[in-house]
Amino acid sequence: MSTQNIETDLQVVCLAGGVGGAKLAHGLAQIIPPENLTIIVNTGDDFVHCGLTICPDLDTVLYTLAAKANSVTGWGRVDESWQAMSAVRELGGPDWFNLGDLDLGLHLTRAHLLGQGQTLTHVTRHLCQQWGVDVTLLPMCDAPAPTTIISPDEHRYPFQEWFVKEKWQPVVQAVHLPDTARATPQVMQAIENSDVIIFAPSNPFVSLDPILNAYPVRSMITDLPQAVVAVSPIISGEAVKGPAAKLLQELGHESSAAGVARYFDDLLDGFVYDVQDADSPTAVSLTQLDLPLLCTDTMMLTSSDRARLAREVIDFVTSLL
Amino acid sequence: MSTQNIETDLQVVCLAGGVGGAKLAHGLAQIIPPENLTIIVNTGDDFVHCGLTICPDLDTVLYTLAAKANSVTGWGRVDESWQAMSAVRELGGPDWFNLGDLDLGLHLTRAHLLGQGQTLTHVTRHLCQQWGVDVTLLPMCDAPAPTTIISPDEHRYPFQEWFVKEKWQPVVQAVHLPDTARATPQVMQAIENSDVIIFAPSNPFVSLDPILNAYPVRSMITDLPQAVVAVSPIISGEAVKGPAAKLLQELGHESSAAGVARYFDDLLDGFVYDVQDADSPTAVSLTQLDLPLLCTDTMMLTSSDRARLAREVIDFVTSLL
Repeated sequence: MSTQNIETDLQVVCLAGGVGGAKLAHGLAQIIPPENLTIIVNTGDDFVHCGLTICPDLDTVLYTLAAKANSVTGWGRVDESWQAMSAVRELGGPDWFNLGDLDLGLHLTRAHLLGQGQTLTHVTRHLCQQWGVDVTLLPMCDAPAPTTIISPDEHRYPFQEWFVKEKWQPVVQAVHLPDTARATPQVMQAIENSDVIIFAPSNPFVSLDPILNAYPVRSMITDLPQAVVAVSPIISGEAVKGPAAKLLQELGHESSAAGVARYFDDLLDGFVYDVQDADSPTAVSLTQLDLPLLCTDTMMLTSSDRARLAREVIDFVTSLL
Repeated sequence: MSTQNIETDLQVVCLAGGVGGAKLAHGLAQIIPPENLTIIVNTGDDFVHCGLTICPDLDTVLYTLAAKANSVTGWGRVDESWQAMSAVRELGGPDWFNLGDLDLGLHLTRAHLLGQGQTLTHVTRHLCQQWGVDVTLLPMCDAPAPTTIISPDEHRYPFQEWFVKEKWQPVVQAVHLPDTARATPQVMQAIENSDVIIFAPSNPFVSLDPILNAYPVRSMITDLPQAVVAVSPIISGEAVKGPAAKLLQELGHESSAAGVARYFDDLLDGFVYDVQDADSPTAVSLTQLDLPLLCTDTMMLTSSDRARLAREVIDFVTSLL
């Protein structure tokens, strides 16, 4: 972690999904004192697989903050091995969801602690402490709050079956989020204490919406923080990674940065979009929204890209206060 | 597997625990047509660990029959790796029970199939089929039937905590087996169809007793088979492996082959003990039991040792019919 912390007493909360969320979280962690930064992570992707509770987004953020992420795949750990999966395959077990050997060590540890009656929040804190991750990483919910993908033929896919098993190819008619999802007390307190909230460049429908849907996150974000900004996950009409552009289109939105800004418009005080869209029709669309804008390089290829973008986003949000 | 099957139409059932049971099962599998051989395995050792149902004795027998066992440790697989456990340790998870990466593949597959509602019996059959193990391998129970070790200070150890975590050092005042243990229909049918029953050289108290305790195994074995023989797990007063001698002593029995024979006396029609005890006081004790005896080399160091002992045991039991 860089020691070039910015001069801020702002309490910053970042809502994050997987890869994009992890990268911006890592950028923020480089520039904000850990006691001032909370990352609230989507758990709508979580599922029980082969007896183990798997939390793909939490793990991607944790691995990234702990410098253990596989930057090529965007999931799992670097220097991973695959012996367990080879035995699963030998034995005709389910091999559509890859579980690396090192990754399994985390899932086993989490299963053990959950089995002792600890909450997912406490388990996540324990895992962070073991690896020296000193920012606060919070699952949005302690209880399962599974996202379901509904196709036009009314098939209901548990999220990971759509995302991984079907490689997110089935057309999406609707994303179902459970009515019963409740934010944890720690999430509510973090939002209550926050000065600014940043939506990471994560999927609006399957990463950010599940967090907003965890009652009462949406209404707290509407009412409380001094400023809320989002970073577009869409550049030149395409998602940097994953199905965000496909979902925007299939759910009837414009597949562009402007489509994202319009989708979250009632929550936002500012919006960050990529310099590649600077002179595009989407930039024109964005100026029509009456929303303060920051146009900058949002691609986070390196660790210092992440820190630079984080600093620009914090400067931008500070200017809105 | 050897094709030198013995000329027998006998239906043979072998009751087995871990290592000793696995070795004799492997010997029997080499000489008996698979349709004539059923191995009933102790599941009193089974436990849920890190979210996964672990069946140590079933797995040892399966790995041995599938030629995948680690013959040095007596548990787990050969050519194993330990990446997952290294991550568990990094994360402060429970590392007292070693789970190899390949071994985990089996546990994950079993957890998946149990999670689908399959019984342990069906899961075990699936695993055998995947690896071409063609003898019938049956868990004694489908539901958990956990063995508990009680020490003189009334501490109650779940079996694996005593056996692995405490390295079976705490003194044993009593072994508790659940009143509610019920044999599976497949176990009952195998015993009903059997001509002879062989007690493998397994621990009397924590491997064989749990099987006998699974209602109505003990009464069926008393009533039905034409002959029942046991192979002593004790040679020269010592267990070949594990705590059998310690348990005999602590539970008030003679720590010898004769002590084992006397313990199972009401069930047995014959007893096999090791040639190392041929001229010992235990041999004298044994002759006082009015039980047909076979004195032979019961050490099973090699695959052909196992087949030879199996053949001698079958010849012996056949002579009793």
